[in-house]
Amino acid sequence: MSEKMQQLKTLLAEVADLNAMQALLGWDQQTYMPPGGNEARGNQLATIGKISHEKFTSDEVGILLSDLEKEFNGSAPDSDDTRLLQVTRHDYDQATRVPSEFVAEFAVATSKAFEAWMEARSKSDFSIFRPHLEKVVELNQRYVTFFPPAAHPYDVLLDQFERGMKTADVKAIFEALRPQQVELLQAIAEVPQVDDSFLHGAYDEKKMLDFSEAIATKFGYDWQRGRQDKSAHPFTTNFSINDVRITTRFEADEPTNMLFSTMHETGHALYDLGSDQAYERTPLAGGTSLAVHESQSRMWENLVGRSLPFWEHFYPEFQKLFPAQVGDIDLETFYKGINKVEPSLIRVNADEATYNMHIMIRLELEIAMLEGSIQIRDLPEAWNAKMDEYLGVVPLKDAQGVLQDIHWSGGTLGYFSTYALGNLVSAQLWEKINEDIPDLQDQFRKGEFGALLAWLREKIHVHGRKYPPQELMQRVTGSKINADPYVRYLKQKFGEIYGLK
Amino acid sequence: MSEKMQQLKTLLAEVADLNAMQALLGWDQQTYMPPGGNEARGNQLATIGKISHEKFTSDEVGILLSDLEKEFNGSAPDSDDTRLLQVTRHDYDQATRVPSEFVAEFAVATSKAFEAWMEARSKSDFSIFRPHLEKVVELNQRYVTFFPPAAHPYDVLLDQFERGMKTADVKAIFEALRPQQVELLQAIAEVPQVDDSFLHGAYDEKKMLDFSEAIATKFGYDWQRGRQDKSAHPFTTNFSINDVRITTRFEADEPTNMLFSTMHETGHALYDLGSDQAYERTPLAGGTSLAVHESQSRMWENLVGRSLPFWEHFYPEFQKLFPAQVGDIDLETFYKGINKVEPSLIRVNADEATYNMHIMIRLELEIAMLEGSIQIRDLPEAWNAKMDEYLGVVPLKDAQGVLQDIHWSGGTLGYFSTYALGNLVSAQLWEKINEDIPDLQDQFRKGEFGALLAWLREKIHVHGRKYPPQELMQRVTGSKINADPYVRYLKQKFGEIYGLK
Repeated sequence: MSEKMQQLKTLLAEVADLNAMQALLGWDQQTYMPPGGNEARGNQLATIGKISHEKFTSDEVGILLSDLEKEFNGSAPDSDDTRLLQVTRHDYDQATRVPSEFVAEFAVATSKAFEAWMEARSKSDFSIFRPHLEKVVELNQRYVTFFPPAAHPYDVLLDQFERGMKTADVKAIFEALRPQQVELLQAIAEVPQVDDSFLHGAYDEKKMLDFSEAIATKFGYDWQRGRQDKSAHPFTTNFSINDVRITTRFEADEPTNMLFSTMHETGHALYDLGSDQAYERTPLAGGTSLAVHESQSRMWENLVGRSLPFWEHFYPEFQKLFPAQVGDIDLETFYKGINKVEPSLIRVNADEATYNMHIMIRLELEIAMLEGSIQIRDLPEAWNAKMDEYLGVVPLKDAQGVLQDIHWSGGTLGYFSTYALGNLVSAQLWEKINEDIPDLQDQFRKGEFGALLAWLREKIHVHGRKYPPQELMQRVTGSKINADPYVRYLKQKFGEIYGLK
Repeated sequence: MSEKMQQLKTLLAEVADLNAMQALLGWDQQTYMPPGGNEARGNQLATIGKISHEKFTSDEVGILLSDLEKEFNGSAPDSDDTRLLQVTRHDYDQATRVPSEFVAEFAVATSKAFEAWMEARSKSDFSIFRPHLEKVVELNQRYVTFFPPAAHPYDVLLDQFERGMKTADVKAIFEALRPQQVELLQAIAEVPQVDDSFLHGAYDEKKMLDFSEAIATKFGYDWQRGRQDKSAHPFTTNFSINDVRITTRFEADEPTNMLFSTMHETGHALYDLGSDQAYERTPLAGGTSLAVHESQSRMWENLVGRSLPFWEHFYPEFQKLFPAQVGDIDLETFYKGINKVEPSLIRVNADEATYNMHIMIRLELEIAMLEGSIQIRDLPEAWNAKMDEYLGVVPLKDAQGVLQDIHWSGGTLGYFSTYALGNLVSAQLWEKINEDIPDLQDQFRKGEFGALLAWLREKIHVHGRKYPPQELMQRVTGSKINADPYVRYLKQKFGEIYGLK
């Protein structure tokens, strides 16, 4: 390795350490920090964020990067070092193109926007949030100008979360998807609905937690390199390839959420735990994009955890744990219950068949806001109209509509579509996995998930951020992200559950 | 406030944030971190330590400090700003006088010394540790040379932990103390011993924890600004004046240790929680020295928690919690049991009457090592001879003798005496407190500790590091640290317990 490469890696390792510390400050804040620590924590996060940014955007990094790009100049395009330079260049440009005065203004504006959103949501009064959202949109419009012109300005926003993804591609994917999902939902609406009342009984929290963690263990979560704690909102975070932690919560009115949430976060964690160990303290560690990350969590939660083969193995144990709740519910009824399709108002509670519709609404509105083709004051009305059109339900108040999500209050536009893309990626990978491992479902029937994890590790996890998402999908499945496998998956699964022809 | 003062405070605030993060990395490592995180944690600690050191020792800080010292030039000697400059100068000189190559050499040597000590202790073979201790002594001898000549070279080591404390003073204090403690121990040895067998029964861990935390609450520990977790070795740490955490552990063979350990750490925590809020993110926050810190922990653990008035109030509750263990043990027997005096080999298990003797041995040997008046190879023999002379017990193997403590393996000389000084300070403050609050003991009999805490807050805690330890003691008690109050305390308490004349 050249001396310059070594120098760059040393600098990047320190940045990785600082980012890990920032993550630890956040983990502690959401799990164990006493309330008194809050103000100091804000200062600590600001200080570490500033120092990490200064270190990463230093001229030293910039010069090393340019020199090394010249030195490598297209040689060994698939080597780790070449890809490290590409990832670092991507992150470096994102971090340096934006002037620090803008970053400061953005921080102040979104801090106010978050406060306003909290109040607006609690009062269900969009007018409180409106001026702040206008500011957020204006800031995002300015953000775009710091980057080279793109085919669509929204490309610049997408690129923050989904390296190389284009607005035109996302639009095309969703346009192919939407009519098919709408058609499926209509077909489901016309047949008898499934019962899931038994999922809302009084489940014991401790038993649910123990069962959830037993499932995480079965999935292959390594408790020597991770742990689960409780937090208000479940999340996955890491401070190293070998220290990847998840959190969960218990909701008395939705007690099985703890189980599926643990499966979901375990999926995220398995991805981060699977990076090549050589990537430790480099920007190549971790997931390549939010969509691919979400594909992993959704796969373990939905394609595995809400599948019939999975429950053929685990349902007897679950029944034994909760005899009063599901003792007299047969497997088929239970399976249908955990897969109940029901258009609803809140994205985070949406089922597999309706979830993407929530995302499409947000994507379309974000693009319109960025383009300026919609006035912010008209947003609630536009939201409700799309809800009616795509899902056939309309919120009675904005708290359950346009104000439900935190993302915009944090200044974030461009994030939402990664959730839906994650669903599509999960199904696209799933078809390939089932080709490669023909007896996969039989393995699930025996409670075995080792072959699935091994496949994911080899094809996806080990590469970390080496390949951008579209290239990774091309390499692994032979095509870029597309909606067809997910549509096939939905039609088959819900066709069976609802007895559609 | 002058612009330069503001600039300095801004820099110091960032250093405080970095130090808080370093503390959080340590807290997490000892409480919740999965084993897989260990290697990465080492890197993170090294990176943050380096960055914090670079930031604090920057020329910018040095120039601002010099300029401000000229600007203040002795005016308002008791103002917070003047004292802030003094504390910062002290810390800055300690951090900058030592060349970075020395720091690196020290880190490598002590890392090896720690490993060697672990092995030496487990095999009880001093020869494994000997060359490393020789290196540690040599490093400490060189460390001293980076500072202006002192009356005694050991002054420089003491000053790291006990700002302004002199070797001659410590020696004088201990020389006054030693014959009196020896005399007391001899008197105790000649009378019938007390029984504490009931303290070693099978106590329930959860009940002991709950009782311990109830006592911490009674003492005034604010759970909104702190929390207690479990760790292999109990400690107190803080990330802010408003986030001060303690840890504890349960030892099946010494079950009540959890209770007294919680009292001890609560004493430390109350000190850190009590700093003037204006000192947040400045070097004035926290305890002024290790001895004064230890005085607070010892006070709550021993002068309060092992006192008869305390147990007059709490013993009925304790008996109700543990009827099988102490249901038929009367209060007086219990009180004597928790205050049993017994010369023993291990410092951390020593009682109030023997503890200081362990420290004197270490102080005398450390001074001799630093002066070169003892060869390291002769240390085990010297240790055992002093144990025999001061305590009348001799270790059968070095693991229970010269190898028992971790401190030297970390390169630390000069630390031990602060433990004994802490005992002395606690008693010196105690006499003053009892003068100022004549009904203090009656308050304890009612389970009330608010007046004690209020006194400590006003006289000690609120000042943080503003006054060096000797000045603080002079201001609060009218004299510098001295042994007389502790001797009076020991003679009265143990005279009563053992029926001495």
